[in-house]
Amino acid sequence: MSNDVSAPMGTLYGVGTGPGDPELITLKAARLIGECPVVAHFCRRGGSGQARRIADAHVTEGHEQLALEYPVTTELPQGSPAYRQAVEAFFEDAAETLAAHLDAGRSIAVLNEGDPFFYGSFMHVYLRLKDRFPTEVVPGVASPLAAATQLPTPLIMRDDVLTVIPGTLPEADFRNALAAADAAVIMKVGTRRDEILRVMQELGRGEGAWYVERASMGQERVVPLEEAPDEAPYFAMIVMPGRGLRADER
Amino acid sequence: MSNDVSAPMGTLYGVGTGPGDPELITLKAARLIGECPVVAHFCRRGGSGQARRIADAHVTEGHEQLALEYPVTTELPQGSPAYRQAVEAFFEDAAETLAAHLDAGRSIAVLNEGDPFFYGSFMHVYLRLKDRFPTEVVPGVASPLAAATQLPTPLIMRDDVLTVIPGTLPEADFRNALAAADAAVIMKVGTRRDEILRVMQELGRGEGAWYVERASMGQERVVPLEEAPDEAPYFAMIVMPGRGLRADER
Repeated sequence: MSNDVSAPMGTLYGVGTGPGDPELITLKAARLIGECPVVAHFCRRGGSGQARRIADAHVTEGHEQLALEYPVTTELPQGSPAYRQAVEAFFEDAAETLAAHLDAGRSIAVLNEGDPFFYGSFMHVYLRLKDRFPTEVVPGVASPLAAATQLPTPLIMRDDVLTVIPGTLPEADFRNALAAADAAVIMKVGTRRDEILRVMQELGRGEGAWYVERASMGQERVVPLEEAPDEAPYFAMIVMPGRGLRADER
Repeated sequence: MSNDVSAPMGTLYGVGTGPGDPELITLKAARLIGECPVVAHFCRRGGSGQARRIADAHVTEGHEQLALEYPVTTELPQGSPAYRQAVEAFFEDAAETLAAHLDAGRSIAVLNEGDPFFYGSFMHVYLRLKDRFPTEVVPGVASPLAAATQLPTPLIMRDDVLTVIPGTLPEADFRNALAAADAAVIMKVGTRRDEILRVMQELGRGEGAWYVERASMGQERVVPLEEAPDEAPYFAMIVMPGRGLRADER
C-alpha cells in the first residue's frame, strides 16, 4: 500500500468469474482475488454488479473495492453519439482510476462475469492499460457453455461448427450469420427477441432450439424456443445444438 | 459401495476440468470429484489422459478409478468403417462399465478436458446413459477461451460474431465456414495444418491470426500465424480475433 515511486508496478488481472453460480469460478480466479489488494467490478449506477456477487465469498474486508459504475444504461439511446461519448469517457476514467493503483504498486483483480475476452467489460480498460502495466487475463466459464449444460443434447460434437451471434446485430447481418450457422448460440437477446424469433422462423431454424435465461444462477429458465416468454432480459440466450454430424455426413 | 438393488442409483457427472492448467478447474468440479466414489477418464491405450492429469490434485487413494482406454487412435484410418465400429463398440462398453457402478448406487465423476459439451468425449457415454440415470453436466473453461487470453487482443467484443470451426471438416465445408466467419477459432488443426493455412491464404484471412499450442499448459506456443511450426499437434488452434465493430460499423 505504498506510494513509493520506486515500488514495482502492480499487475492488472482480468478475472473471469464464470456465468453465475459462485461454484463455477476457477481455483485460479479465487486465489488471485484473494491475493490482490484491490478488487474492481463494473456495475450499473446504484447496482451491485453480477460479477461482484458471484465472487462474494472471496472478497474480504481487507480488500480495497472499486465499483466502476456505468454512467448510462437506458437514459440515452444505445448507439447514439451521446451514449457512445459517455461510455468512452467512462472507460477512460475507469482506466485512470485503475492506473493510479497500479502505479502505486497495487495489483488489481478486475472481476468479469463469464470470460474476460468473451464480450467482457474488462477489455475496454485492458486495451487502454496493456502497454503501460503488466497484465494477465484469467479465462472463465462462458455463459453459452453453462446454458448448454442445461439442455438434454450436447452443444457441439464430432464435426459441428458453432457460431456465437450477438442478437444486437442489424437484422440483415443477423440473418446472414444465422443462415450460415450450423450449431449456434444467440446472445444478448433482450429487446431484439421478436425480431430474432421472426428471422429464425423465416429461415426455418426454430426446431430443436432452446430459450435459456439466467443459466447456472439458480433460477434458470430453460424451455423449448416455442415456449419462450414474451419479454426476454438482455442476458437471455437462444441455443441451437449441433447435429453431431461426421465430416462425411454433412 | 453397496450392491443392494434397492439402493438409489448413482449420478453420472460430466465434469469439465478446463483447458490444461490445473488451477483453471472450477470449485464445483473439484468438489464433485472429491465427493464421487468413482472417477473415470478417457485416455489413449497406455496413456495417462490429459483430463486425469489436470484433476490429479483432487483424486485420492480412496477413489475407485476407471481408465476408459480408446481402442484405436492411429492404427486404423480415421473415418473408415472399421475405425467407427471400434469406437462405437468402445463407447458401448464404456457406458456399460459406468452403468454397473451407477446401478450399484455409486456416483461417477467422468473427467473431461475443457467443457463436456464442447467436443467432449463425455457426451458419447452421456447420450447412452442419460435416460437411465440421473445426470449433471458441469461446464468448464473451454480451450479456445484459454488460448484467446494468451493474445494481446480480445477474442470478441461489441458486435463481433464468433465461429468455432473444426479443422477436420472437408475442405469445401471448411472454406465455406471460414468465408462466412468474422472472428474464428479453428480447432483440431493437427494433420490438416497445410490445407488450413492454404485456404486461409486463399481467402485472405491470415492477417492478425495466431497459432496457439498447449494453451494454459505451461509450455504454450503462441505465435503469429506466419510463424506457425511445420508440424501441428491435434489440439493446436488458430485464433482470429474479432475487429470489435459496433453494429453500425460492420
